[in-house]
Amino acid sequence: MKQDCLGLGEEGLLHHCFTHRRNNCNYAHQATSLSRMLDFLNSAQRSLDICVFTITCNEIADVLLDAHKRGVQVRIISDDDQMASNGSDVARLRKAGIAVKIDNSKYHMHNKFAIIDKRLLMNGSFNWTRQAVIGNNENVVILDTPQLVSMFGKYFESLWKKFQSI
Amino acid sequence: MKQDCLGLGEEGLLHHCFTHRRNNCNYAHQATSLSRMLDFLNSAQRSLDICVFTITCNEIADVLLDAHKRGVQVRIISDDDQMASNGSDVARLRKAGIAVKIDNSKYHMHNKFAIIDKRLLMNGSFNWTRQAVIGNNENVVILDTPQLVSMFGKYFESLWKKFQSI
Repeated sequence: MKQDCLGLGEEGLLHHCFTHRRNNCNYAHQATSLSRMLDFLNSAQRSLDICVFTITCNEIADVLLDAHKRGVQVRIISDDDQMASNGSDVARLRKAGIAVKIDNSKYHMHNKFAIIDKRLLMNGSFNWTRQAVIGNNENVVILDTPQLVSMFGKYFESLWKKFQSI
Repeated sequence: MKQDCLGLGEEGLLHHCFTHRRNNCNYAHQATSLSRMLDFLNSAQRSLDICVFTITCNEIADVLLDAHKRGVQVRIISDDDQMASNGSDVARLRKAGIAVKIDNSKYHMHNKFAIIDKRLLMNGSFNWTRQAVIGNNENVVILDTPQLVSMFGKYFESLWKKFQSI
Protein backbone atom coordinates (compact mmCIF):
# COMPACT_ATOMS: atom_id res chain seq x y z
CA MET A 1 0.00 0.00 0.00
CA LYS A 2 0.95 3.62 0.32
CA GLN A 3 2.48 3.39 3.73
CA ASP A 4 6.00 4.02 2.61
CA CYS A 5 5.48 6.99 0.34
CA LEU A 6 3.12 8.68 2.77
CA GLY A 7 5.47 8.32 5.67
CA LEU A 8 3.40 6.39 8.14
CA GLY A 9 4.36 5.20 11.56
CA GLU A 10 7.17 7.17 13.08
CA GLU A 11 7.04 9.72 10.31
CA GLY A 12 3.33 10.49 10.50
CA LEU A 13 1.54 12.30 7.73
CA LEU A 14 0.59 15.92 7.68
CA HIS A 15 -1.84 17.25 5.14
CA HIS A 16 -1.33 20.96 4.85
CA CYS A 17 -3.79 21.61 2.11
CA PHE A 18 -6.40 19.25 0.80
CA THR A 19 -6.25 20.23 -2.83
CA HIS A 20 -3.47 20.77 -5.30
CA ARG A 21 -4.55 22.38 -8.53
CA ARG A 22 -3.16 23.82 -11.71
CA ASN A 23 -3.70 27.54 -12.15
CA ASN A 24 -6.15 27.32 -15.01
CA CYS A 25 -8.01 24.16 -14.23
CA ASN A 26 -10.50 23.29 -11.51
CA TYR A 27 -9.57 19.62 -11.47
CA ALA A 28 -6.68 18.13 -9.62
CA HIS A 29 -4.10 16.48 -11.87
CA GLN A 30 -1.87 15.08 -9.19
CA ALA A 31 -2.42 13.15 -6.00
CA THR A 32 -4.12 15.50 -3.55
CA SER A 33 -4.45 15.16 0.19
CA LEU A 34 -8.06 14.19 -0.41
CA SER A 35 -7.17 11.55 -2.98
CA ARG A 36 -4.53 10.15 -0.64
CA MET A 37 -7.05 10.08 2.20
CA LEU A 38 -9.51 8.24 -0.06
CA ASP A 39 -6.75 5.74 -0.89
CA PHE A 40 -6.34 5.02 2.82
CA LEU A 41 -10.07 4.51 3.31
CA ASN A 42 -10.23 2.40 0.15
CA SER A 43 -7.48 0.18 1.50
CA ALA A 44 -9.81 -1.16 4.23
CA GLN A 45 -10.30 -4.89 3.94
CA ARG A 46 -12.10 -5.76 7.16
CA SER A 47 -13.29 -2.76 9.17
CA LEU A 48 -13.75 1.01 9.16
CA ASP A 49 -14.57 2.55 12.54
CA ILE A 50 -15.43 6.16 11.87
CA CYS A 51 -16.04 8.80 14.51
CA VAL A 52 -16.51 12.14 12.75
CA PHE A 53 -18.46 15.27 13.70
CA THR A 54 -19.91 15.83 10.23
CA ILE A 55 -19.83 14.16 6.81
CA THR A 56 -20.91 16.20 3.78
CA CYS A 57 -18.13 15.38 1.32
CA ASN A 58 -19.74 13.08 -1.25
CA GLU A 59 -16.44 11.67 -2.46
CA ILE A 60 -15.69 10.38 1.04
CA ALA A 61 -19.24 9.10 1.56
CA ASP A 62 -19.03 7.19 -1.72
CA VAL A 63 -15.84 5.49 -0.61
CA LEU A 64 -17.57 4.38 2.60
CA LEU A 65 -20.47 3.01 0.54
CA ASP A 66 -18.07 1.12 -1.71
CA ALA A 67 -16.36 -0.37 1.33
CA HIS A 68 -19.72 -1.46 2.75
CA LYS A 69 -20.66 -3.04 -0.57
CA ARG A 70 -17.47 -5.09 -0.74
CA GLY A 71 -18.08 -6.51 2.75
CA VAL A 72 -16.02 -4.22 4.98
CA GLN A 73 -17.67 -3.73 8.39
CA VAL A 74 -18.32 0.03 8.43
CA ARG A 75 -19.47 1.70 11.65
CA ILE A 76 -20.09 5.43 11.93
CA ILE A 77 -20.44 7.61 15.02
CA SER A 78 -21.49 11.19 14.29
CA ASP A 79 -23.07 14.28 15.82
CA ASP A 80 -26.87 14.43 15.99
CA ASP A 81 -27.19 18.13 15.10
CA GLN A 82 -24.78 17.90 12.19
CA MET A 83 -26.59 14.86 10.85
CA ALA A 84 -29.72 16.98 10.55
CA SER A 85 -27.95 19.78 8.69
CA ASN A 86 -28.03 20.48 4.96
CA GLY A 87 -25.90 18.24 2.80
CA SER A 88 -25.20 15.63 5.45
CA ASP A 89 -24.43 12.22 3.96
CA VAL A 90 -25.05 10.32 7.20
CA ALA A 91 -28.73 9.44 6.57
CA ARG A 92 -27.84 8.23 3.06
CA LEU A 93 -25.14 5.97 4.48
CA ARG A 94 -27.57 4.60 7.08
CA LYS A 95 -30.18 3.90 4.39
CA ALA A 96 -27.59 1.93 2.47
CA GLY A 97 -27.23 -0.37 5.47
CA ILE A 98 -24.22 1.08 7.27
CA ALA A 99 -24.50 1.02 11.08
CA VAL A 100 -24.71 4.58 12.47
CA LYS A 101 -24.88 5.91 16.03
CA ILE A 102 -25.29 9.52 17.16
CA ASP A 103 -24.85 11.31 20.46
CA ASN A 104 -28.32 12.85 21.08
CA SER A 105 -26.73 15.55 23.21
CA LYS A 106 -26.77 19.33 23.44
CA TYR A 107 -22.98 19.11 23.27
CA HIS A 108 -20.99 18.01 20.26
CA MET A 109 -19.61 14.64 19.29
CA HIS A 110 -16.68 16.60 17.91
CA ASN A 111 -14.07 13.93 17.15
CA LYS A 112 -12.70 13.51 13.64
CA PHE A 113 -10.95 10.16 13.53
CA ALA A 114 -11.16 6.82 11.75
CA ILE A 115 -9.57 3.46 12.41
CA ILE A 116 -8.80 1.33 9.36
CA ASP A 117 -8.65 -2.45 9.83
CA LYS A 118 -7.84 -1.85 13.52
CA ARG A 119 -4.36 -1.02 12.25
CA LEU A 120 -4.24 2.60 11.08
CA LEU A 121 -5.43 5.71 12.89
CA MET A 122 -6.50 8.79 10.90
CA ASN A 123 -6.95 11.79 13.21
CA GLY A 124 -6.79 15.58 13.18
CA SER A 125 -8.81 18.75 12.71
CA PHE A 126 -10.48 17.74 9.46
CA ASN A 127 -14.26 17.35 9.35
CA TRP A 128 -15.30 15.36 6.32
CA THR A 129 -16.84 18.34 4.51
CA ARG A 130 -16.46 19.97 1.13
CA GLN A 131 -15.50 23.32 2.67
CA ALA A 132 -12.72 21.69 4.64
CA VAL A 133 -11.45 20.02 1.48
CA ILE A 134 -11.55 23.09 -0.71
CA GLY A 135 -10.34 25.92 1.44
CA ASN A 136 -9.69 25.37 5.12
CA ASN A 137 -6.33 24.98 6.78
CA GLU A 138 -6.53 21.52 8.27
CA ASN A 139 -4.37 18.62 9.32
CA VAL A 140 -4.81 14.87 9.19
CA VAL A 141 -2.26 12.58 10.79
CA ILE A 142 -2.13 8.90 9.90
CA LEU A 143 -0.32 6.65 12.34
CA ASP A 144 0.10 2.92 12.75
CA THR A 145 1.48 3.07 16.29
CA PRO A 146 -0.18 -0.01 17.88
CA GLN A 147 -0.72 1.52 21.32
CA LEU A 148 -2.33 4.65 19.93
CA VAL A 149 -4.52 2.66 17.56
CA SER A 150 -5.54 0.48 20.51
CA MET A 151 -6.40 3.50 22.70
CA PHE A 152 -8.57 5.01 20.00
CA GLY A 153 -10.13 1.59 19.38
CA LYS A 154 -11.17 1.34 23.02
CA TYR A 155 -12.46 4.91 22.90
CA PHE A 156 -14.49 4.11 19.79
CA GLU A 157 -16.02 1.04 21.46
CA SER A 158 -16.95 3.06 24.57
CA LEU A 159 -18.78 5.63 22.44
CA TRP A 160 -20.38 2.92 20.34
CA LYS A 161 -21.75 1.34 23.52
CA LYS A 162 -22.92 4.69 24.89
CA PHE A 163 -24.68 6.18 21.86
CA GLN A 164 -27.91 5.20 20.15
CA SER A 165 -28.49 3.65 16.75
CA ILE A 166 -30.50 5.45 14.15
CA MET B 1 7.46 16.07 34.00
CA LYS B 2 4.34 14.11 33.30
CA GLN B 3 5.57 12.32 30.23
CA ASP B 4 5.67 8.93 31.80
CA CYS B 5 2.34 8.84 33.54
CA LEU B 6 0.53 10.35 30.59
CA GLY B 7 1.97 7.89 28.16
CA LEU B 8 3.74 10.11 25.71
CA GLY B 9 5.71 9.13 22.67
CA GLU B 10 4.80 5.75 21.37
CA GLU B 11 1.85 5.48 23.69
CA GLY B 12 0.24 8.80 22.88
CA LEU B 13 -2.40 10.32 25.07
CA LEU B 14 -6.10 10.20 24.51
CA HIS B 15 -8.42 12.49 26.41
CA HIS B 16 -11.90 11.06 26.33
CA CYS B 17 -13.58 13.60 28.49
CA PHE B 18 -12.20 16.90 29.63
CA THR B 19 -13.70 17.01 33.08
CA HIS B 20 -14.00 14.58 35.93
CA ARG B 21 -16.29 15.68 38.72
CA ARG B 22 -17.82 14.43 41.91
CA ASN B 23 -21.57 14.02 41.83
CA ASN B 24 -22.39 16.82 44.24
CA CYS B 25 -19.66 19.31 43.54
CA ASN B 26 -18.97 21.50 40.54
CA TYR B 27 -15.24 21.52 41.10
CA ALA B 28 -12.86 18.85 39.95
CA HIS B 29 -10.98 17.15 42.79
CA GLN B 30 -8.69 15.02 40.70
CA ALA B 31 -6.48 15.63 37.73
CA THR B 32 -8.74 16.26 34.76
CA SER B 33 -7.89 16.18 31.09
CA LEU B 34 -7.96 19.98 31.17
CA SER B 35 -5.65 20.20 34.17
CA ARG B 36 -3.26 17.76 32.51
CA MET B 37 -3.35 19.78 29.32
CA LEU B 38 -2.59 22.94 31.33
CA ASP B 39 0.34 21.11 32.94
CA PHE B 40 1.76 20.41 29.49
CA LEU B 41 1.40 24.05 28.43
CA ASN B 42 2.83 25.19 31.76
CA SER B 43 5.86 22.99 31.19
CA ALA B 44 7.01 25.23 28.31
CA GLN B 45 10.40 26.76 28.99
CA ARG B 46 11.32 28.29 25.66
CA SER B 47 8.50 28.35 23.11
CA LEU B 48 4.79 27.75 22.55
CA ASP B 49 3.68 27.67 18.90
CA ILE B 50 -0.09 27.59 18.95
CA CYS B 51 -2.32 27.10 15.92
CA VAL B 52 -5.91 26.86 17.14
CA PHE B 53 -9.23 27.75 15.48
CA THR B 54 -10.72 29.41 18.56
CA ILE B 55 -9.67 30.25 22.12
CA THR B 56 -12.40 31.10 24.63
CA CYS B 57 -11.34 29.01 27.61
CA ASN B 58 -9.98 31.51 30.14
CA GLU B 59 -8.01 28.90 32.07
CA ILE B 60 -6.01 28.09 28.93
CA ALA B 61 -5.59 31.76 27.99
CA ASP B 62 -4.28 32.50 31.50
CA VAL B 63 -1.66 29.79 31.16
CA LEU B 64 -0.49 31.33 27.88
CA LEU B 65 -0.27 34.72 29.56
CA ASP B 66 1.75 33.25 32.42
CA ALA B 67 4.13 31.64 29.92
CA HIS B 68 4.56 34.95 28.11
CA LYS B 69 5.27 36.74 31.40
CA ARG B 70 7.99 34.27 32.36
CA GLY B 71 9.77 34.77 29.03
CA VAL B 72 8.50 31.88 26.92
CA GLN B 73 8.18 32.89 23.24
CA VAL B 74 4.45 32.46 22.62
CA ARG B 75 3.11 32.69 19.05
CA ILE B 76 -0.56 32.21 18.19
CA ILE B 77 -2.20 31.55 14.83
CA SER B 78 -5.99 31.66 14.91
CA ASP B 79 -9.09 32.13 12.75
CA ASP B 80 -10.16 35.69 11.93
CA ASP B 81 -13.91 35.08 12.26
CA GLN B 82 -13.57 33.23 15.55
CA MET B 83 -11.36 35.96 16.94
CA ALA B 84 -14.23 38.41 16.45
CA SER B 85 -16.76 36.19 18.19
CA ASN B 86 -18.08 36.55 21.73
CA GLY B 87 -15.78 35.41 24.48
CA SER B 88 -12.66 35.12 22.36
CA ASP B 89 -9.47 35.52 24.36
CA VAL B 90 -7.27 36.22 21.34
CA ALA B 91 -7.47 40.04 21.45
CA ARG B 92 -6.67 39.98 25.18
CA LEU B 93 -3.61 37.84 24.53
CA ARG B 94 -2.47 40.21 21.77
CA LYS B 95 -2.92 43.22 24.04
CA ALA B 96 -0.70 41.56 26.61
CA GLY B 97 2.09 41.46 24.04
CA ILE B 98 1.77 37.96 22.60
CA ALA B 99 2.40 37.74 18.83
CA VAL B 100 -0.80 36.78 17.00
CA LYS B 101 -1.53 36.12 13.33
CA ILE B 102 -4.89 35.38 11.68
CA ASP B 103 -5.93 34.03 8.31
CA ASN B 104 -8.14 36.86 6.90
CA SER B 105 -9.95 34.31 4.74
CA LYS B 106 -13.52 33.28 4.03
CA TYR B 107 -12.41 29.75 4.88
CA HIS B 108 -11.35 28.54 8.29
CA MET B 109 -7.97 28.28 9.90
CA HIS B 110 -9.32 25.14 11.50
CA ASN B 111 -6.24 23.48 13.01
CA LYS B 112 -6.09 22.73 16.73
CA PHE B 113 -2.49 22.01 17.56
CA ALA B 114 0.34 23.35 19.69
CA ILE B 115 4.06 22.67 19.75
CA ILE B 116 5.75 22.93 23.13
CA ASP B 117 9.48 23.77 23.19
CA LYS B 118 9.74 22.33 19.65
CA ARG B 119 9.63 18.97 21.39
CA LEU B 120 6.00 17.99 22.08
CA LEU B 121 3.03 18.05 19.70
CA MET B 122 -0.50 18.47 21.07
CA ASN B 123 -3.09 17.79 18.35
CA GLY B 124 -6.65 16.59 17.92
CA SER B 125 -10.26 17.71 17.64
CA PHE B 126 -10.28 20.00 20.65
CA ASN B 127 -10.88 23.72 20.18
CA TRP B 128 -9.76 25.65 23.23
CA THR B 129 -13.28 26.54 24.33
CA ARG B 130 -15.32 26.17 27.48
CA GLN B 131 -18.00 24.13 25.73
CA ALA B 132 -15.42 21.68 24.47
CA VAL B 133 -14.03 21.35 27.99
CA ILE B 134 -17.36 20.88 29.72
CA GLY B 135 -19.39 18.67 27.47
CA ASN B 136 -18.07 17.71 24.05
CA ASN B 137 -16.58 14.41 23.05
CA GLU B 138 -13.08 15.35 21.99
CA ASN B 139 -9.59 13.94 21.71
CA VAL B 140 -6.15 15.41 22.24
CA VAL B 141 -3.06 13.41 21.40
CA ILE B 142 0.32 14.40 22.77
CA LEU B 143 3.34 12.99 20.98
CA ASP B 144 7.07 13.55 21.14
CA THR B 145 7.88 11.75 17.88
CA PRO B 146 10.66 13.97 16.44
CA GLN B 147 9.67 13.62 12.81
CA LEU B 148 6.03 14.47 13.48
CA VAL B 149 6.97 17.41 15.68
CA SER B 150 9.28 18.60 12.91
CA MET B 151 6.58 18.31 10.23
CA PHE B 152 4.12 20.32 12.30
CA GLY B 153 6.88 22.81 13.10
CA LYS B 154 7.47 23.42 9.39
CA TYR B 155 3.73 23.66 8.83
CA PHE B 156 3.45 26.24 11.63
CA GLU B 157 6.27 28.32 10.13
CA SER B 158 4.64 28.24 6.68
CA LEU B 159 1.36 29.55 8.11
CA TRP B 160 3.20 32.10 10.25
CA LYS B 161 4.88 33.44 7.11
CA LYS B 162 1.63 33.44 5.14
CA PHE B 163 -0.74 35.11 7.62
CA GLN B 164 -0.90 38.67 8.88
CA SER B 165 -0.14 40.09 12.30
CA ILE B 166 -2.83 41.86 14.27
